[in-house]
Amino acid sequence: MAENPTASPVSNNLSPDVPRGADETVDSLLNGDGVRLERIVSRGQASPAGFWCDQEEAEWVMVLSGRARLTVEGETSDRELGPGDSLFLPAHCRHRVAWTAPDQATI
Amino acid sequence: MAENPTASPVSNNLSPDVPRGADETVDSLLNGDGVRLERIVSRGQASPAGFWCDQEEAEWVMVLSGRARLTVEGETSDRELGPGDSLFLPAHCRHRVAWTAPDQATI
Repeated sequence: MAENPTASPVSNNLSPDVPRGADETVDSLLNGDGVRLERIVSRGQASPAGFWCDQEEAEWVMVLSGRARLTVEGETSDRELGPGDSLFLPAHCRHRVAWTAPDQATI
Repeated sequence: MAENPTASPVSNNLSPDVPRGADETVDSLLNGDGVRLERIVSRGQASPAGFWCDQEEAEWVMVLSGRARLTVEGETSDRELGPGDSLFLPAHCRHRVAWTAPDQATI
């Protein structure tokens, strides 16, 4: 991450203040030199049919609460992620969100 | 993170297979270009008295389970972190682990 000796420590809780309502929300938590940290809260959202996410950057994702299923292109079954489960997606590893739990917030 | 189009997606769960025993363990989960991801499991460990952690790199820490108290140099009270709490420590922000819960794993 970027060296930034003048900045102060910043604390945060990723679970409370989960936005209410049905929309998916993405909050930027940190923007460093070569790394970006986001909190995504989904409530049943999934990628549009036929859509694949193909990113320049590698991504590491972890589920804090809720449940999600991700499809990785070329794999025969989805990867289901619950609390504590993480997945590293190399750059240009095409993937899509197949499902997120409709009855709770998936963080 | 490093672009690495040949690598495969890697999944992981940060909570199960928590090492038993009293020692603190540090596992490297990811080593990218400019970013490093580690899982630290503490069971009551704290920084040695008088020791301050002073790092070249910025650090972002999140507690998944358990409980920890961190002291940031110059602050009058400790920062207590529970599940979902995170703290961004800029490079060279001197800090120490004042306490971790002795009766459970703090991940």
